[in-house]
Amino acid sequence: MKELVAELSKGIWTLPPFPVVLVTVDRNIMTAGAFHFYSFKPPSVMVGIIPKKYTYELINRENEFGINIPTMEQIALVRTCGSVSGRDVDDKYSKAGVTPFRGTKIKSYLIKECPVNLECVVVHKVGFTGTHQWFVGEIQAVHVDDTYTRDQPLMFWSGEYRKVGEFLEKAW
Amino acid sequence: MKELVAELSKGIWTLPPFPVVLVTVDRNIMTAGAFHFYSFKPPSVMVGIIPKKYTYELINRENEFGINIPTMEQIALVRTCGSVSGRDVDDKYSKAGVTPFRGTKIKSYLIKECPVNLECVVVHKVGFTGTHQWFVGEIQAVHVDDTYTRDQPLMFWSGEYRKVGEFLEKAW
Repeated sequence: MKELVAELSKGIWTLPPFPVVLVTVDRNIMTAGAFHFYSFKPPSVMVGIIPKKYTYELINRENEFGINIPTMEQIALVRTCGSVSGRDVDDKYSKAGVTPFRGTKIKSYLIKECPVNLECVVVHKVGFTGTHQWFVGEIQAVHVDDTYTRDQPLMFWSGEYRKVGEFLEKAW
Repeated sequence: MKELVAELSKGIWTLPPFPVVLVTVDRNIMTAGAFHFYSFKPPSVMVGIIPKKYTYELINRENEFGINIPTMEQIALVRTCGSVSGRDVDDKYSKAGVTPFRGTKIKSYLIKECPVNLECVVVHKVGFTGTHQWFVGEIQAVHVDDTYTRDQPLMFWSGEYRKVGEFLEKAW
């Protein structure tokens, strides 16, 4: 039986899971559940940041960000980066036990242990703000580990970490 | 071994899967792989539409859209709505074998057989266009089937349909 739900935010919490990523700016790392591709051409992605977060300040200052895709084995890393603010620790890479490497096209660091890293430059700040400010970043460089498969990433939504789901069918 | 990839669009294709949704405007249905929540408050979502699509014309005209979440059993429906343009068929609901019902807060129809339906009014057209035009829609009404669980939706990316992944851990 279908019901009309009174609480509109249920429309958000009821959604399927989304990829979880680690956003790196300067020497900081933040866990983000608000991430999507934006456009095929120019190849670009977008990330939604709550304005009180330290990363919001950093992206506005640096105008760039790194997207690091963690695997489901890196759930502890994801939790650490999502629970401690870069305002309160000297070096989140040390805190989380991961290795920084410098971008080739951006100044910010990226996470060596994540199998995919995207170096992005901000090309647009979306002009409608709710709880999140969305930033569109054009991809400037892509690093992929040769053992990476699309079965490895970690998904998240509505308080639940999940695996990437089983393959069903090819689309074309 | 991590490699710097020459083809930047690989940064898009290498991403984890995203939810696939059916976007309904007026009496038309379109399959969309470009969908995300936008903001918790106001509760809003966003959808990216390729401008040559019929739905692009319809959203611009009606300033509203429905989001219908299909289950993995509805993959044939998703394929049909993704392969036929509403410009070329009289009624996509009949073509796809599903039942339209009118929104309570929008004029557009929604799909009865999908377990979740969101009625949305466009509040923002994102001002940077690549291959997709993103529309932000504020949720006006939410319909949820009482048998729906977050294990049922269908995921998609990079030419692959997938199930929602297995639950790993609670986040908090």
